[in-house]
Parts: sequence; C-alpha cells; structure tokens
Amino acid sequence: MKASQFLISTLKEAPADAEIVSHQLMTRAGMIKKLGAGIYNYMPMGLRVIRKVEAIVREEMNRAGAIEVSMPVVQPAELWQETGRFEKMGPELLRIQDRHERDFVIQPTSEEVVTDIARQEFKSYKQLPKNLYQIQTKFRDERRPRFGLMRGREFIMKDAYSFDKDRDAAQVSYQTMRAAYKRIFDRFGLQYRAVRADSGAIGGDLSEEFQVIAATGEDAIVYCPDSDYAANIEKAEALAPAQARPAAAQAMAKTATPGKSTCADVAELLKLPLQNTVKSLVLATDERNEAGDIVKTQVWLLLLRGDHDMNEIKVGKVPGLADFRFATVAEIEDHFGCQPGYLGPVNLKKPVKLVVDRDVAVMADWVCGANEADYHLTGVNFGRDLPEPELVADLRNVVAGDKSPDGKGELLIERGIEIGHVFYLGTKYSKAMKATFLAENGKPAEFEMGCYGIGVTRLPAAAIEQNHDERGIIWPDAIAPFTVVVCPIGMDRSEAVKTAAEKLHADLLAAGVDVILDDRGERPGAMFADWELIGVPHRVVLGDRGLQEGMVEYQHRRDTSATKVAVADVLGFITSRVQKS
Amino acid sequence: MKASQFLISTLKEAPADAEIVSHQLMTRAGMIKKLGAGIYNYMPMGLRVIRKVEAIVREEMNRAGAIEVSMPVVQPAELWQETGRFEKMGPELLRIQDRHERDFVIQPTSEEVVTDIARQEFKSYKQLPKNLYQIQTKFRDERRPRFGLMRGREFIMKDAYSFDKDRDAAQVSYQTMRAAYKRIFDRFGLQYRAVRADSGAIGGDLSEEFQVIAATGEDAIVYCPDSDYAANIEKAEALAPAQARPAAAQAMAKTATPGKSTCADVAELLKLPLQNTVKSLVLATDERNEAGDIVKTQVWLLLLRGDHDMNEIKVGKVPGLADFRFATVAEIEDHFGCQPGYLGPVNLKKPVKLVVDRDVAVMADWVCGANEADYHLTGVNFGRDLPEPELVADLRNVVAGDKSPDGKGELLIERGIEIGHVFYLGTKYSKAMKATFLAENGKPAEFEMGCYGIGVTRLPAAAIEQNHDERGIIWPDAIAPFTVVVCPIGMDRSEAVKTAAEKLHADLLAAGVDVILDDRGERPGAMFADWELIGVPHRVVLGDRGLQEGMVEYQHRRDTSATKVAVADVLGFITSRVQKS
Repeated sequence: MKASQFLISTLKEAPADAEIVSHQLMTRAGMIKKLGAGIYNYMPMGLRVIRKVEAIVREEMNRAGAIEVSMPVVQPAELWQETGRFEKMGPELLRIQDRHERDFVIQPTSEEVVTDIARQEFKSYKQLPKNLYQIQTKFRDERRPRFGLMRGREFIMKDAYSFDKDRDAAQVSYQTMRAAYKRIFDRFGLQYRAVRADSGAIGGDLSEEFQVIAATGEDAIVYCPDSDYAANIEKAEALAPAQARPAAAQAMAKTATPGKSTCADVAELLKLPLQNTVKSLVLATDERNEAGDIVKTQVWLLLLRGDHDMNEIKVGKVPGLADFRFATVAEIEDHFGCQPGYLGPVNLKKPVKLVVDRDVAVMADWVCGANEADYHLTGVNFGRDLPEPELVADLRNVVAGDKSPDGKGELLIERGIEIGHVFYLGTKYSKAMKATFLAENGKPAEFEMGCYGIGVTRLPAAAIEQNHDERGIIWPDAIAPFTVVVCPIGMDRSEAVKTAAEKLHADLLAAGVDVILDDRGERPGAMFADWELIGVPHRVVLGDRGLQEGMVEYQHRRDTSATKVAVADVLGFITSRVQKS
Repeated sequence: MKASQFLISTLKEAPADAEIVSHQLMTRAGMIKKLGAGIYNYMPMGLRVIRKVEAIVREEMNRAGAIEVSMPVVQPAELWQETGRFEKMGPELLRIQDRHERDFVIQPTSEEVVTDIARQEFKSYKQLPKNLYQIQTKFRDERRPRFGLMRGREFIMKDAYSFDKDRDAAQVSYQTMRAAYKRIFDRFGLQYRAVRADSGAIGGDLSEEFQVIAATGEDAIVYCPDSDYAANIEKAEALAPAQARPAAAQAMAKTATPGKSTCADVAELLKLPLQNTVKSLVLATDERNEAGDIVKTQVWLLLLRGDHDMNEIKVGKVPGLADFRFATVAEIEDHFGCQPGYLGPVNLKKPVKLVVDRDVAVMADWVCGANEADYHLTGVNFGRDLPEPELVADLRNVVAGDKSPDGKGELLIERGIEIGHVFYLGTKYSKAMKATFLAENGKPAEFEMGCYGIGVTRLPAAAIEQNHDERGIIWPDAIAPFTVVVCPIGMDRSEAVKTAAEKLHADLLAAGVDVILDDRGERPGAMFADWELIGVPHRVVLGDRGLQEGMVEYQHRRDTSATKVAVADVLGFITSRVQKS
C-alpha cells in the first residue's frame, strides 16, 4: 500500500469528549470518526485493525469446529417475546416498528434467533454437538455511551452459541471454546487473564471473562500469583477469617465525633486503626402484589468492616436480598432515628434485618455510629451490646493481601478490560423457546447451551489502553493496521531514495509483509510523528546519506534508537522480526 | 471441510411463498432461512457464497484504488435532514427513535454519511480523487418484500462513493469504477450486460446498470446485436420514424364496437392491423399552494400506437409531466364525457393537453375511441379531424425490431436482474450538505460525486436464476459454496474408500482447492441429490469397485455422464479443471 493512495488523517488534538487514552488516540490517529453518541465510522486505518481482529477470530473459531452463520440485524419481536426479553430488557434494547407497525428489535445478541435455528435444524442428538457463530453488527442503546469504541452503542461482536445433548457434553463444548479463546488472545499479542465471573441465576463455575490487563480498565481483577486462581472482583470469594473472635475487653461508650461521618474520619479522630470500625449500610426490599403495588417494605442493615467495600453481586445472593435497593433517607430516619453518617446496629428505633459480613462477625470492641448525629459508639461487642448475628455472609469485595480461595497464597488486584466472555447457559433459552431434539432414549430433550462473545471493535481500544506511550499507539504485530512502514527522506528530490524505497516496499509485499510506503512527501518530523501516533510497530527510514553508505535505519516502535542495517540485509532483517500471525 | 462438521440441511419441498427458482433453491439447499418478511438468516452454506462474492468485490475495489471504510447501520437523522431525504423518502426508509427520542434511520445507502466524512477529511483538491466504499448491512422497508434475497428488506450491499475536483475528473472516476465492475462480473462467471440506465434529474449518460441475463429478470434490457448498444428499456430511445406521414385516404367514420374496449379487440373486430389503432391514456397533474392543497388540476391526453406501451420515465420528462398521475374516472368522464375504453382526441367535452408519441405523429387513417361507449372512430387524420399535434415526444418502450439509437442495426430485448449500478451524482449531495474543498484557484468548490453499488446478497440469487436445472443450482466456480465435493460410496464399510477419499480431500486442500468431503454416510442417491441441489460444480465419486481398477469418477455439474479418471491422475485432472478465482 502507498500512503498517497490511502486515507491518512491524523489530528494534533483529541476531541473534548475523549476521556480515555484509546478514545483519544484512535480519534487522533484517524481510526474512528464520531457520527453520533456511541456511533462511529470505522475509518480506513481503523477498519484494517478490525478486519485483522475478525480474521484471527474467524480462523480460530473455524479451527475449533464452530460454523459461521449470519443472523439479521433487524429481528422480529416475536422470538424475543418467547423468552420474555422483549418486555424484560430495559431501554438498551432498541425497539422499532416497521411500516406495518410490527415490532422489531436491533440485535444486541442473538440467543433467540440462534435457538430458533437450532430447534428447526437439529432434530436428533446425532447432529450434536453444534456451535454456530457470527461476526455481526450489534446495537445497545446505552444510557451513557462513552470512551469511544470501549462502550459504544453500535459495535461489532463475535457471538457463538453451542448446542449439546447433555450437561457433560456442554462442558466439553465450553472447554473447547475456552481453549480457542486462549489461542485467539495469545495471537493478538496482548497481556490478558481468563478470570472467573459471576454466572448469575444459572450458577456453577462455567462463566469466565477474558480481561486485557490495563491500568485504565473498568473491571477489578483478583488473582493469586502463586496459583492459577483469577476472578472478577464481583465473583472472588473473601474467605471466612481463620481466627476466632477475641473476648470483649472494653465497655461500650458513646463518644462525640462532630462532623465525622465516615469510618476513616472517625478512626483518625479516635486514633484507632480503620479495621476497628464497622460501617452500616441500609438496604430495602419491596414486596409487591399482582398489580405491581408495594404492599410491604423490609429494611436491612448490613455491617462491613470500615476498610471494606460492599459487593453488590454477593449481597444480591443473600436470601431475601435478590432485588435489593438502597434505603431512602426517610426510611433510614424512620428506623434509626438518625441521618446517614452516624448509623449503627445498637439502639434502633424500629427493628431491621441484620446481615453481618464474615470479617465483622469475628471483631470485638468495635466502633460504629450511635444512631445520633455527631456521636459514635466504641467498645461494641456482639452477644453483649447487641445479639449474636444470625445472618453472616460474604458481603464484601476482596482486597489485596486476602487469602486466595484456593488456599495457595495471597490475592493481588489489577485492572482489566473485558474483551471476551464464555458462559454456560444451561437450558435457560431452550426451555423458554421449547427448543428440543430427539435424545438417545427417543424422547425430546432441551438443548444444553453455551454462549461465547468477543468484542471485536472493543478489542483494538483495549489493546491501545495496554500498549501506548506519550507519542501514540504501539500495536502488536498481529493487529497493527500495517506491520511495517517505509519512510523515505526526500523521495521527491532523490532518485536513489525513491528507487530504494519502492524496491523495499515491493520486496516486503512479495514476502507477504503488510507494508505501507509513505510517499506523501511529508517532512521527516511530521512523517515520523504520524506513524508513531498511528503505532505501526516496525519502521524503516531511507535517506540519501545512509544509502551512500549502503545503510538504512530500522526502529521498532518500542526502541529508543534506530539500528543501522545494510541495504542488502534489510529484507531478511525485517522479515525475521515481523511476527507471523 | 468435512460434511459431518458442517451444517448441511436440504429440503425436498420449497416453502409456499417461494415464487421464483432462486428463492426455492436457496431455501431447499439450506442457504437461507426466513426469519421474517424479507429478513433472512444467511446459513453456513449460503454465507460461504456471500463471503466469496464479498472477497472478489473487495479485491477489485482495492485494485481500482477505492478505500474501504465502514459506516454505521444506525445513522442520526440530522444528516438525512440536511439533504431533505429524511422527510422526502417514503416508508422504505426505516426511521427509529432511541431512548432519548432522538431520530435515527437504518441506512438504506450512505450518501449523507460519506459526504459528511468527505467535507471533514478532504480539504484540498490535492487530496482528490478519493473513492470510499463499504460492504455493509442495509435495510429498506419494502412494501412487498418477496423473491427471497432478490427483494429482501435487510441485505448486504457494497456501496462506493467517489469524490472529484471537477466534472472531467468525476468522469475518469466513473470509468475506473465501470472497468472494475466489468472485472468483478467477469470473475463471477456470469453472463451479464452493462446497460445504460436513466439518470433521473441529474441527466447525462453516466448511469449504467449491470444486469445478469435471466429469463425471470424483472428488468427488460434492450440491446443491439450489431453494436455495443445496450440499455434498460426505461432508458432506450425509440427513434423518430424515418418515413413521413402518408396522405389521408379515408373519411372519418363512427363505427360500433360493442364491448371492444382495447385496441387489440377493436383491430380484430375491424380486421385491421393493430398498428393502425391509437390508444388514449389520460394523465393529470396537480398544482398546489404552499399549504399543499390542490389549487388547479390539468388533464393530459397521451396518444400511443395500439401495439406500443407507455414508458413512465420518458413521460415524466415531458415538460409539465414530471409529477404526473393517472387521471381518475371522474376526471376522465368530466373531460371526455365517456368512460375509459372508448376514449379519443376527437369531440372532447372539455379541452385537455395533447401529447403525441413520435410514431403516432406519422400515422394516417387511424382508429381511436369515439368518446362514446361502444363506438370507435376510423379514418382519423391530424390536421383534418383534429389539429396537428403541438407536442410530439418519445413516450413509449422500444420493441424488438426497432432501429438501434446508434443507427447500427435493430434492437433485441431480453430479461435481466440488476446486480450493480454505476451512477454519476454531480453535486447533488455536496451542494445540499455544503461539502466543499479548496480548489486549485483557492476558492471553495463542491465535490463532484459518483456512487457505485453492488447487491452482494442479491448476486447469488441472480446467479441461480441464470444457472440451474431441474435438479438444483449450478454454481460458477468462483462463487460456489465449495468448488469440489468428494463423495465416497460406503466409506463406513470400506477402509480402501475411506483412505482414498481422505487422501484426495487432503491433497485438494493442500492444492488450495475449496473442497468438501461428504463423510455423512448417506446412501449414494441421497448424497448425489444433495450435492446436485446445492450445486457444487465438480464432483468426484470413489467406490470400492472403481478403486480396485485404480479409477474414480469425475463429473461436472453440467455433464450428463461421469468420466473415469485414474487415481494417480485425479489431483491434476481436477486442479486443471477448477477455475482459479
């Protein structure tokens, strides 16, 4: 490719709404162009990256025995009504009516349509297992689209769906996909982790996310450096403390803590470790009648150690708390006789249901709010100042230094960006859609399903979050828009430079290298800045002076200086350095 | 590929709504599966064809210097309001509102978005010419979707848009695309014609359709076997007759023609050639005020020879008739004092505007309705029975045997399916969207544009309409789902057959041939019927008896019998017959 025949469009400044580096750099490098909130044109430079991602995904999906189909972007609502998702999903499901006022949706995923295909096509267990996948445009009407391709509304996703005759076979399909995902992400040349994820109502451990490690990631990933344990913080269990509760040593006392409404402020004032304080979180659950009206509200008090954070997924699994919400200030005042900031489990105005985190359950002589503004209690103890807790559960996010759930060391935490998900679905969709096949015993059975996604357009953004510097993007070879750029200095003035540059370009193309020749005639500074911003990993510079000595200059995007290479050797030098994808 | 690992799903019967052979065969061959009216799943077998079409299109677009981008499926209405198409387009433009009640459309094409890109990216004439293309999902909410992929609502289209600094340069871009289209359609291995098409309000000759020749085509194509003239019948000019009008020889007379309301019936009754009759077509045009109310209606009478058909495109170009409609029965009775079937230009009740086809203008002693039920006039003559016509124009479709407009012979007519269109747009969109660049003279100038479409998912349907027999599809090599099928007989019983089949499969794969091995264990009859239906062009059959003689059987899908080929020669035999795409 010659740059003069391509569309290279770099910007000095990032747009004002680009908060994260991948959004800034993809826009500045001319890879994407915003058309509306969360809706982007994939410009030629960006589309090359996306196509390379797609090609690797497709190759590995085919290798794993998955079969490519393509399901419509605009899907009739009927199927979505069969599973109830047409009604249940929020406004992120974009609903449309056609000219005849029939309801349609724009696919956010395709479980319904693929299950409809399966129930028509797979009549017998002999046809199973089958895995159907597509690489297709999706749309989710996010409330607050942001971060460029990281959380767009329109995006490209690879979604695969496996159909099996029983749970054991489904687990094999799951593991096959998991292995394919590892090959895919290995080929991308990114640092990533497969981490356990919450599997929601379906349960079991067959739900893993593939997370690209990046300091700017939205997800917290927990891992144990001494074992292969890794999980999303949503999922990672905080083990019950090994030690028993110490005996009470202090009497309970009320202490003035004027204006100190957080555990950290109180600990500082009282010169106590933060771990001696307990925070009170007030939740509520509503019981409704058939008409949807609230007939009863239960208020809950959760106790967590002052230095710990609540984990909403775990709290949602406490019996009775599946549909919890945070209590209103009115509800809090009604039960505690006090505004938030000074709450505690002692001296309640009205009874609440108490749920205590495992770590709080083993504390003695702790500090909590006194249910009176500007006052806290110290020396509080279970079994004396309040009853022994009946409901003890894991309510908190793990923190660095916690014991690994596999008992093999201590946990560390890093940030990640989810770019893939493998998920065992069970019979959730096949049951709802009466999707059955004839089993070996001659009776109809529901398909055991799995679903497997990769965010094709999110992946380049995640790669950039992980691989960039102050000058721009640093692409891994496998997904770079071009693998090599040939930069001639003064090509318009020097026939020798022109000839050598065009020969190298032609030789590299012939060797199967994805190379671009910058024949735009830009000055060296601007030319180098463009390619450093765009992030092409390998660069060769040719100039008159060097060529007179028979030399060109090679520099990897991560190198701090250039290497002189003899013209005669440069083809072999580069091809040996370029990663074969 | 092994058939056991693929999704092969053939049907004995076509669905009831499949009216045309491509729809029937694509459904029966398991290539598409209907999800809703005009909305189809592209099943694995069909998707392979579509991907091959895409690959050829992409390769030739890149070769022609076009640059691939990808524009969103969901597009903000604002840009469509700039050109007025948001309001002007009918309900085939699918309009949506997002969660914030902002208006969007699903792209039916992308002129607005690509022009928006151009006005931001192409600042100077030095950046021109540029051609941007995409291969993307489109949606048109057709009133009556039908014929499978031929007239679907959701479909895949390759749309390209050229941007040039002036009209001359735009013509060069147009010709470059035209040449690329010829290479593309040549590679598909289809019989096609590039025909002149109507260019609407823009005018000029730079509008051509690529039509796949097929008896079932919706379009009539006119061509001259003695020259390269070819045009859509909408566009093809009917030359003015060379001969002058003969002198009047008959007196005008009223004749009873009870119940004979068509020219054909009247000619038969009066034992006259149909060419001696004249048909009267009544149109109307409405003048509206700013509020959109009709303030004046003009009624028009068109005269065509009895054996000729009106051409609506040509009629729409007669001054004053751009927005014509057919007159209502009430309007007709008001002006002619008679119901349709017996109308004519003589003895009108109220004046109408008369437009006369060129062929009628040179007729003498003709027959037309008497404006009285069950009566016609004979021996009618211009200049005697009615005034000489003031407005004479080409109003009719050409017919076979008409002189070619290039003067080089006589025209023939065949049917075609439009699968591509190249179109010079001029400044229609750049003017509406104020899309300018800095011209060589330092002043802003509007882009000269062209647009170029290929119906990617329609093409396989068109290929089938042209290439099929009673057993199924006959794919050209370039776009066949598989080029070669290896059919072993009794693979489960014979180790020799299994070994030979798997070796041939592996050897063909290694030679770069797209081959499928049918290892499903079907009986020969069912197996052959499947592959004949699916239309794989090359078939090799291996059986125990043949292998004992060292022979296999080769048969092209068009062959009536098989050819014996020595096992040792079969690889070379096939690779020499398979068309390199």
